[in-house]
Amino acid sequence: MLFRSDKHTANVVLVTAQGILFTDHYQLTMIQLYHRFGIHDRTSQFDYFFRSYPDYGEHQAGYCIVAGLGPLVEWMTEAEVTDADIAALTDLRGRTGANTFSDVFLDWLRSNGGFTDVNLRAIPEGRVVHPNVPLAIIEAPLAAAQLLETSLLNHLNFPTLIATKASRVAEATGGGTVLEFGMRRAPGWAANAATRASLIGGAQFSSNMGMSAQLGVPSKGTHAHSMVQAFIAIAGGELEAFRAYAEVYPDDCLLLVDTIDTLESGIPNAIKVFEELKSKGHRPVGIRLDSGDLAHLAIRSAQMLEEAGFEEAAIALSSQLDELTIFQIRTQIIDEAPNWGVDPGALLSRLIYGVGSRMVTSDGDPSLDGVYKTVSVHDADGLGQPAIKISDTPAKVVNPGPKGVWRIYSSRGTATADLIGLADEAPTVGPLSLVHPSHPSVGRQLEATEVSEVEPLLVDFVRKGSVIADLGNVEEARARRKADLARLDAGVRRLVNPHTYHVSLTPRLSELKWRLVSDLAN
Amino acid sequence: MLFRSDKHTANVVLVTAQGILFTDHYQLTMIQLYHRFGIHDRTSQFDYFFRSYPDYGEHQAGYCIVAGLGPLVEWMTEAEVTDADIAALTDLRGRTGANTFSDVFLDWLRSNGGFTDVNLRAIPEGRVVHPNVPLAIIEAPLAAAQLLETSLLNHLNFPTLIATKASRVAEATGGGTVLEFGMRRAPGWAANAATRASLIGGAQFSSNMGMSAQLGVPSKGTHAHSMVQAFIAIAGGELEAFRAYAEVYPDDCLLLVDTIDTLESGIPNAIKVFEELKSKGHRPVGIRLDSGDLAHLAIRSAQMLEEAGFEEAAIALSSQLDELTIFQIRTQIIDEAPNWGVDPGALLSRLIYGVGSRMVTSDGDPSLDGVYKTVSVHDADGLGQPAIKISDTPAKVVNPGPKGVWRIYSSRGTATADLIGLADEAPTVGPLSLVHPSHPSVGRQLEATEVSEVEPLLVDFVRKGSVIADLGNVEEARARRKADLARLDAGVRRLVNPHTYHVSLTPRLSELKWRLVSDLAN
Repeated sequence: MLFRSDKHTANVVLVTAQGILFTDHYQLTMIQLYHRFGIHDRTSQFDYFFRSYPDYGEHQAGYCIVAGLGPLVEWMTEAEVTDADIAALTDLRGRTGANTFSDVFLDWLRSNGGFTDVNLRAIPEGRVVHPNVPLAIIEAPLAAAQLLETSLLNHLNFPTLIATKASRVAEATGGGTVLEFGMRRAPGWAANAATRASLIGGAQFSSNMGMSAQLGVPSKGTHAHSMVQAFIAIAGGELEAFRAYAEVYPDDCLLLVDTIDTLESGIPNAIKVFEELKSKGHRPVGIRLDSGDLAHLAIRSAQMLEEAGFEEAAIALSSQLDELTIFQIRTQIIDEAPNWGVDPGALLSRLIYGVGSRMVTSDGDPSLDGVYKTVSVHDADGLGQPAIKISDTPAKVVNPGPKGVWRIYSSRGTATADLIGLADEAPTVGPLSLVHPSHPSVGRQLEATEVSEVEPLLVDFVRKGSVIADLGNVEEARARRKADLARLDAGVRRLVNPHTYHVSLTPRLSELKWRLVSDLAN
Repeated sequence: MLFRSDKHTANVVLVTAQGILFTDHYQLTMIQLYHRFGIHDRTSQFDYFFRSYPDYGEHQAGYCIVAGLGPLVEWMTEAEVTDADIAALTDLRGRTGANTFSDVFLDWLRSNGGFTDVNLRAIPEGRVVHPNVPLAIIEAPLAAAQLLETSLLNHLNFPTLIATKASRVAEATGGGTVLEFGMRRAPGWAANAATRASLIGGAQFSSNMGMSAQLGVPSKGTHAHSMVQAFIAIAGGELEAFRAYAEVYPDDCLLLVDTIDTLESGIPNAIKVFEELKSKGHRPVGIRLDSGDLAHLAIRSAQMLEEAGFEEAAIALSSQLDELTIFQIRTQIIDEAPNWGVDPGALLSRLIYGVGSRMVTSDGDPSLDGVYKTVSVHDADGLGQPAIKISDTPAKVVNPGPKGVWRIYSSRGTATADLIGLADEAPTVGPLSLVHPSHPSVGRQLEATEVSEVEPLLVDFVRKGSVIADLGNVEEARARRKADLARLDAGVRRLVNPHTYHVSLTPRLSELKWRLVSDLAN
């Protein structure tokens, strides 16, 4: 509805950009080919997985938080081929001017272009996930599986990237409150997906009003520099601006103190207004710092607020925060606060972190290398034939065939490895063989005493295009994240140079994989 | 329509996330305050500008290409306050459980919450732009100007960032064809904004079917590895896959040759199929390389294709391309091609560049630091009072008051400086005084003989909420980009360490600015 300005055809506005044509051109050229050769309805399986953790320059993540499944399933179950889509496809011409898509194909597509034959198994949103593990498995006629590819990748890659970054930011705060403030510099409409992913990944609240309302999470915010500037321009000042704010929001009074000068003007004015509020029986909330040396200013502000009797006032920090900056700010406060007579622990417990651009763009690594690979296609007799794609890089050879994924918990109850096997396997808490995914001769054996639980990770969510299991809301996804992080070793959760989590294959899958590679090479 | 899964209220689905509540919470808390104090309808002016060029790690841009205005204006003119929006606002509670927004305010907002009183002047899409220059100026009642802030920033920051990256990618190709392939790893729905911005900034075509259709630019694409894998899995092979493609698309046959082994399998099979096509009177298009050493493989592929008589075959390159990688590939081809008996110039002219993730995420710097600052608010007598925001960093002090922007062209016809002045100034090709924006004592004087043209850059696009001038489509924006780049010095266009373009103030604006700073400090 929002990108329709450029092309109007015979008074019909084409609105195709968020529907089924939210895809790459080559999906349609391939589907037409499959249709021409009569293989469009061969059952096939595609796996969605990412190959490596996001790497933000000097520091790479040790785990990801999967997100985006809910909106993907909603898109899939709503998408259908419209007249506008067919009109757009009819318009396309090849080099010689002939139609790219034949009428026969478009007639077929008009009636068969949806996702009503698609099955989807996936790992629920909010869970901790690792490279090369199938996070979503699509089983569908070849045409539908191919048509879904681009949108599936788009719907899962970005939210997983942002939920991962948000989880790191939340970890860096040591249990503090994170507010997502990123809409203004977020990538276009993906601001909404970023809000949702941030809330799943670690932010408690967001400033994004519309998306917060839709998700049932109250939005948060107070005021900007512009409010103080407006009062200054029309013959008032910072104090008048703060008083106005306190008058309208006496029980939610959090003041931005750096429009003029934080320590010389903002904090003294805030204290004046807080005293006025207190005398009227209200408890002020606190202040926000948005520029300068945030750690130092937080200490100095805390000192002044404490001296004035506002030792409970929250101190919100914002301005280009990310996980390492937050970590450094907390470290600096621990070092420097005692010099100013401020108790660092008490101050840290009152900090609130407003995190924007760097979280919602995953600054340092703004895309996840998620891929969607053919792993099986049925032959003419309806028998599934495992598909392989080889590569000069062993780590990039795809794991073939229909698969299951299990998480292995150690005797201490922490996750020790994810195990990828064939769908008909059922590993149990017995002796388990784990094989290295790209070095088949390397492996390890876990005895029954070393394993406390073997948990299947994939859930059947969509069967024949219909949702058959509850995808859950943001709250449930958050609960899954928290439970998973509690069972993840601290070394894997570390912000910098984390310990590598193991993803292994079952012996049967490993054998199939290297047999297919050997067949293709010969 | 697409994010509605999480909250259903009394059978009414809230769909607020792309409407007027696509904004930050604090805009509404400030607007309620302005309304309470009766200053919500004071005419005010806000400027949108960015502070610094994107900096992609080692290499910073020397100019930007502005984009996003068309979709912004469309959103503004369509956005209105709905019952769902009011319901969402009514739901919000403060710390004590009281409603954040009063009924009086919400009643007012319901009838007055749109942008029907907004005026917008802006620099048209596709133009070359520089830091601190107002790219969009909003003149509106304080409430409307504030309500618009977040969405305006979101609508302009990301497209300008991506159009800038795309322009650099296009420059790096030396006039080659760039295809935008980024949807799968683009940030969610911003894939569509990225496609539009890429097409304005430098991509000739995109793989994004829906958005391309809406923009009236044909989408492009051929096939993926999955097609070859599917033929292998169901008892065919790469050759059968290529033959199938050639049969369906005999005049548009471009084959992806790296599924198995580019030089051992892909190119020999492609040549076989090209010969079959040729014998039937068709001209094959070429091949695509998607892995390995793209420069080396392009040379070796060209050699094999030329030996087989296909010296016109295009060679499309893809896989993690960005401007520096493209520059390096071209350099390597110039160095290495003669060793293989391949003419580098002829090969370079046949290259096509498929660019994805790194362009559509602006890899290296994934957000533009665009801001929206109060520069004037009318007082109770209706007189515009210039507003200022000071900072410890002189470069961050806002330029106050209503403004105009002019581009100064040298006697050679190239752009030599952008000049920011007060709206009632009218600089001409006479002697011109240019003052440094943060060092008022530094400036330069241009004599009439040194100036060939003084071009006003801002256009009145929206008056009282209605569009009064044609915003233009993607083709027109592209034409503006090309014209502007042709008049930009090569040193400023350079990919690495570009020459700094001058942005200056008129003496009158500079005097106003530093007088306000001095008043505020005293």
